[in-house]
Amino acid sequence: MKKVVLAFSGGLDTSFCCIYLSRDLGLEVHSVIVNTGGFSEEELVQIEKRAYELGVTSHAVVDETSDYYQDSIKYLIFGNVLKNATYPLSVSAERVCQATAIANYAKKIGAECVAHGSTGAGNDQVRFDMIFNILIPGVEIITPIRDLKLSREAEIEYLNNHGVEYSAEKAKYSINKGIWGTSVGGVETLTSNQYLPESAWPTPVTSSETRTVTIDFEKGQPVALDGEKIGPIRVIQELQAIAQPYGIGRDIHVGDTIIGIKGRVGFEAAAPVILIKAHHTLEKHTLTKWQLSWKDQIAAFYGNYMHEGQMHDPVMRDIEAFLASSQETVNGRVYVELNPYRFTVIGIDSDNDLMSNKFGTYGEENKSWSGEDVKGFSKIFGNQTIIWHKVNQKD
Amino acid sequence: MKKVVLAFSGGLDTSFCCIYLSRDLGLEVHSVIVNTGGFSEEELVQIEKRAYELGVTSHAVVDETSDYYQDSIKYLIFGNVLKNATYPLSVSAERVCQATAIANYAKKIGAECVAHGSTGAGNDQVRFDMIFNILIPGVEIITPIRDLKLSREAEIEYLNNHGVEYSAEKAKYSINKGIWGTSVGGVETLTSNQYLPESAWPTPVTSSETRTVTIDFEKGQPVALDGEKIGPIRVIQELQAIAQPYGIGRDIHVGDTIIGIKGRVGFEAAAPVILIKAHHTLEKHTLTKWQLSWKDQIAAFYGNYMHEGQMHDPVMRDIEAFLASSQETVNGRVYVELNPYRFTVIGIDSDNDLMSNKFGTYGEENKSWSGEDVKGFSKIFGNQTIIWHKVNQKD
Amino acid sequence: MKKVVLAFSGGLDTSFCCIYLSRDLGLEVHSVIVNTGGFSEEELVQIEKRAYELGVTSHAVVDETSDYYQDSIKYLIFGNVLKNATYPLSVSAERVCQATAIANYAKKIGAECVAHGSTGAGNDQVRFDMIFNILIPGVEIITPIRDLKLSREAEIEYLNNHGVEYSAEKAKYSINKGIWGTSVGGVETLTSNQYLPESAWPTPVTSSETRTVTIDFEKGQPVALDGEKIGPIRVIQELQAIAQPYGIGRDIHVGDTIIGIKGRVGFEAAAPVILIKAHHTLEKHTLTKWQLSWKDQIAAFYGNYMHEGQMHDPVMRDIEAFLASSQETVNGRVYVELNPYRFTVIGIDSDNDLMSNKFGTYGEENKSWSGEDVKGFSKIFGNQTIIWHKVNQKD
Amino acid sequence: MKKVVLAFSGGLDTSFCCIYLSRDLGLEVHSVIVNTGGFSEEELVQIEKRAYELGVTSHAVVDETSDYYQDSIKYLIFGNVLKNATYPLSVSAERVCQATAIANYAKKIGAECVAHGSTGAGNDQVRFDMIFNILIPGVEIITPIRDLKLSREAEIEYLNNHGVEYSAEKAKYSINKGIWGTSVGGVETLTSNQYLPESAWPTPVTSSETRTVTIDFEKGQPVALDGEKIGPIRVIQELQAIAQPYGIGRDIHVGDTIIGIKGRVGFEAAAPVILIKAHHTLEKHTLTKWQLSWKDQIAAFYGNYMHEGQMHDPVMRDIEAFLASSQETVNGRVYVELNPYRFTVIGIDSDNDLMSNKFGTYGEENKSWSGEDVKGFSKIFGNQTIIWHKVNQKD
Repeated sequence: MKKVVLAFSGGLDTSFCCIYLSRDLGLEVHSVIVNTGGFSEEELVQIEKRAYELGVTSHAVVDETSDYYQDSIKYLIFGNVLKNATYPLSVSAERVCQATAIANYAKKIGAECVAHGSTGAGNDQVRFDMIFNILIPGVEIITPIRDLKLSREAEIEYLNNHGVEYSAEKAKYSINKGIWGTSVGGVETLTSNQYLPESAWPTPVTSSETRTVTIDFEKGQPVALDGEKIGPIRVIQELQAIAQPYGIGRDIHVGDTIIGIKGRVGFEAAAPVILIKAHHTLEKHTLTKWQLSWKDQIAAFYGNYMHEGQMHDPVMRDIEAFLASSQETVNGRVYVELNPYRFTVIGIDSDNDLMSNKFGTYGEENKSWSGEDVKGFSKIFGNQTIIWHKVNQKD
Repeated sequence: MKKVVLAFSGGLDTSFCCIYLSRDLGLEVHSVIVNTGGFSEEELVQIEKRAYELGVTSHAVVDETSDYYQDSIKYLIFGNVLKNATYPLSVSAERVCQATAIANYAKKIGAECVAHGSTGAGNDQVRFDMIFNILIPGVEIITPIRDLKLSREAEIEYLNNHGVEYSAEKAKYSINKGIWGTSVGGVETLTSNQYLPESAWPTPVTSSETRTVTIDFEKGQPVALDGEKIGPIRVIQELQAIAQPYGIGRDIHVGDTIIGIKGRVGFEAAAPVILIKAHHTLEKHTLTKWQLSWKDQIAAFYGNYMHEGQMHDPVMRDIEAFLASSQETVNGRVYVELNPYRFTVIGIDSDNDLMSNKFGTYGEENKSWSGEDVKGFSKIFGNQTIIWHKVNQKD
Repeated sequence: MKKVVLAFSGGLDTSFCCIYLSRDLGLEVHSVIVNTGGFSEEELVQIEKRAYELGVTSHAVVDETSDYYQDSIKYLIFGNVLKNATYPLSVSAERVCQATAIANYAKKIGAECVAHGSTGAGNDQVRFDMIFNILIPGVEIITPIRDLKLSREAEIEYLNNHGVEYSAEKAKYSINKGIWGTSVGGVETLTSNQYLPESAWPTPVTSSETRTVTIDFEKGQPVALDGEKIGPIRVIQELQAIAQPYGIGRDIHVGDTIIGIKGRVGFEAAAPVILIKAHHTLEKHTLTKWQLSWKDQIAAFYGNYMHEGQMHDPVMRDIEAFLASSQETVNGRVYVELNPYRFTVIGIDSDNDLMSNKFGTYGEENKSWSGEDVKGFSKIFGNQTIIWHKVNQKD
Repeated sequence: MKKVVLAFSGGLDTSFCCIYLSRDLGLEVHSVIVNTGGFSEEELVQIEKRAYELGVTSHAVVDETSDYYQDSIKYLIFGNVLKNATYPLSVSAERVCQATAIANYAKKIGAECVAHGSTGAGNDQVRFDMIFNILIPGVEIITPIRDLKLSREAEIEYLNNHGVEYSAEKAKYSINKGIWGTSVGGVETLTSNQYLPESAWPTPVTSSETRTVTIDFEKGQPVALDGEKIGPIRVIQELQAIAQPYGIGRDIHVGDTIIGIKGRVGFEAAAPVILIKAHHTLEKHTLTKWQLSWKDQIAAFYGNYMHEGQMHDPVMRDIEAFLASSQETVNGRVYVELNPYRFTVIGIDSDNDLMSNKFGTYGEENKSWSGEDVKGFSKIFGNQTIIWHKVNQKD
């Protein structure tokens, strides 16, 4: 019997796949769930239980939280990546990590097939297909939901017919929770002109007291929160726990899907947006003009290309080398004030601050150049345009 | 007697210049103030009165509000320009406009000299020097404040000695008010780690009621507010009047000055930041992926280069041609909700919305391609990376 | 009977399509050939004769030479586009033009189907499919060669069986001749390490005498050859007639196909490579540093995206607006010396030459700035890096 | 007595400086010459002799050939850097290396001053000034030639008056010989429309026999010539010795000087242009599309910024990290044919060749995707533009 590795979430689509792959296709189903930091222990136990109820041969939980941070989130912070100046790529980055982990798991257990529950309408199918094609080229990809185009009702009926209970109620919003943000889709996001209501957001706003937090960065990585050195992953998790109840980092992203249509999705991502603005502010103090400028350009590409699932193109390694090199001096503390629905970066302290010269005050700094120097600079800096206007003047 | 055109603001430095240029240098002083939308009629009358008290031969008010919008602000909106993802270039754009207007005025009245009151420490000296060098290359530039390096007290004493009264008190914060935002510098902005106190902001927060406004764009330009077609300049002014009392659009910009040092400045710019986010959201619905991507790149350069005073390099005209071309389909209405200290873009309506196909719903759109098509796409889209991994795999 | 428009070249594949579309698919075949400047009158007559022998209902010749120049070649010159610093996009640009013309022709005659003879291995299928999908979305695309995967022998047998004679001999090299260059593929280009032999090049080297030609540009367009104002298309054609017999502009392009594999193709393109280097040299004299820099970046994208058939994305119009704006001052004469297998740009004359100031010699120009000015410039220009090193020095 | 380090070349200007610095300024002169691979042992001995004749307290030869390759040339090869698609930055790269070495030497011997012989008209003054300001900020910079603006005749007279003989004859062309190319300026390069005569080129054309050479690259570095593994520096030197007598790599560069004027300079650089085209061809076979694209963009900036002397901005280190990362798979042999005045890249062999799949022929490769896949790809690849045209169609 051929082995198939199924990317399993415990939802309707992948529950259907469990049964369909074993009963209809006669495959030995090995379900796997990749935890990138979005699941609690309890949730993982529930999902495992569910998998065995659905008759899988084996079920595995692959914890990729650390790799996810090291291979993706770290660079999204280095690059201050907010797609279209808004979205921290909460889902995109996670899917790439999950697809990669599943491919590696399939290789490890010697599976002949790999299955995912994507439909034919979204980004995820491309990310899964493509990453499987790249990393496990000989392995057959099976996508029952995309291929069969069954309605929700038909899937439930199929499950019931195979002795599996599934309640027919459907959540109003589709939610994807991860360490780098939670997406919220449905109803209003299907239009162009409506906003999500308060009730749609997973985390209600329960904090209202003004609060200041500090984040310490070392070579661009957030290593401490409020002075406690807990490492980047815990900084993200604990900052999220503190800040999301303020309703910070909510917005709607309007973006280009990989398949060329426009899509709209809500997200709440307090920790990512705070960390990115804090990190960016620290960079403005510690990097040169051209470092900031080039980082912007290549990080925008990096985010878009990761979004499109192209994380395994070697150009991404080259960009990561650039970004890592640029973080050498991005060290210091950032002060952030939290208020309901908003936050403010108060300022920074850094030994690498180009604004606070350790050799003296700005007055002293000015001793090294004069107004005369600036006069000369202005002449030479404008020289080509001066000549251009002389040569090309109309009158 | 040689004519000098003096860029006059009515402040201490340019008041000193008035006297110094005529008495010490023996020049015929023609003061000029360029209004880019930041001055009220009353303020202009006061400044004129002041100029004549200081003994100028003539005083002129040049109203550049319309040109400022047409030549600069329009393109900053087209390009969604926020320097370092934060600052709408409130002061930078204005200075370029003012320097250009003063150069043209000097040419018009046949002045042999032109004077400005910049010190040797900031950006403005470069902008004024360079633009004068470019546009009126034969005209001598005089900068008494930069050259004499007098203290504030010495300037006041000089004025008093020449029979001009000047009160010694100095504002705690230096404020520059313009149609595209107001800057606030001093005390806290001279450090890296402190934020401006509530009292420092020119506009106190007096509005607290949630309010929705609509902005209509035609080819990228904001032409109507709340459905009333009042044209771009009045949209900016009236939106500012509505939104600034909410405390919206306040932040601190940390940036690279033209002369290579880092600087920090507070600003309040409710209308600019709302218009830019509203415009950008409309673009996300109406432009293609690569239009958005290229706009980002060239607009970032455009903003930086304008900031550096290089507005007369012909490359700026080329970029403007690109930006104007890209706005052909940027038409529609944007809904924005205002709340104290923050605003939310609710959504948009547009005939050019690529998300709302006028030929049918998304279900129908999907008829033109299938899950099978996406399978093929995923294979080909990943083809090169597939081959790369096959060729370069280690094991 | 349904109408099909067939992109017809007179070769084996499209001859097969003629018969197959009418006999097997029962369609009314309207063959069309798009002339982009690569066909002689005689060749067109021959192809028309062939089409009617194959039983088409109608045959049309669409002359797109002028549109091809206006819509594509002009911008390739403006952008100095050589893909991977080598290839003038001879075939890519032409295919986009042809596909567009065929789509418009199909729309004009109200065809329900459109057919092309591409195989499943190359770039052309993507360009044709995609442009048809964009411009005539309701029209069915038929690709017999790609779908049936017949061998050359099977196609010939099929033709013979339907009473059409076709000789079995096959050219050793596949050649595509166009106004913007001729491609040569086969034998050696299928390897990575061999070069095309002298005999493979369509134009033998028959000229050996050193010769100088002059090309006059107006706003970036080549309007005169050797002082004779014959317009851009004739400049290209006549320069090609003069220079190709020198063996100039031969090379092998190694490129990324749209479908992700690497491909190699020889080309001879004397006029394109001479015009581009001549134009680029003129630009180096007449454009500012940042015009040159930005042109490079966006033109490289423009060439790549055109190569991929994406000419109808509106971003291409935006880039064209930039490029056209940049050509305002690209006026003058360029001197080029031709020798066997190589050419040399001797120099230029231009009223817009930023190197030859019409207001004086360089000595005089230097009067406007001094060594002192440069000292000041050097200090300020290096200021940020000076500070960076002070702040970050290790010892 | 204060110590001054003088960048010494043995020419008129720096000979004048020797005397002037000691006699007129009363400084203890320590001359230093930086060899970047352009000087022979004999030349260095001659220059040393000359220095002592001029009365210097000490003279040092700093051999930077290896550092020059490691810190600059290597990255120029990685980036295929030809400024304005023409010039390998022969002089620019060398000056940066020399200025850095002189700064380090001045620091080492504890000099209070550093002097260079630049005039006030060129690029070198900025490079020297700026790099000294950055690396040895406290050290005084003295530039007698720029400050005194003496004529050639006056300098000679001054030398004669101080008992130093100097013949009055002046070379017709100013030549700067280095390992990365030799520049030739004068007479014709001062115009826009004339080319250098055969006699102006330092290396006469003496080779006419067609010859093939092979260059082996490892991680982007040229390590072997004709199969002999002699290391990058000797590859450059020996390839230059072989190829320059063919007259290969001659051209005139028209460029933007740092001070904003246009300049023209001839150069002969056979090895650099051959190595760059060979390397680029190897990259076309071994890198992905986006690696090639991004390398082009950042390497163009890298070259321009190095040209402007800004090598010590940390952004250059970040770019180098990108470039080095991209070279991981740039391994293989390149075949080059030499002929008088031209060369041809014949082809390459590489284990990392994406065109020659080691797992099979292209036929087999095609088994992994079909014409059907490409149909799907074409639909999805064009999807957004399809929608754009539907939404925005005029009729």
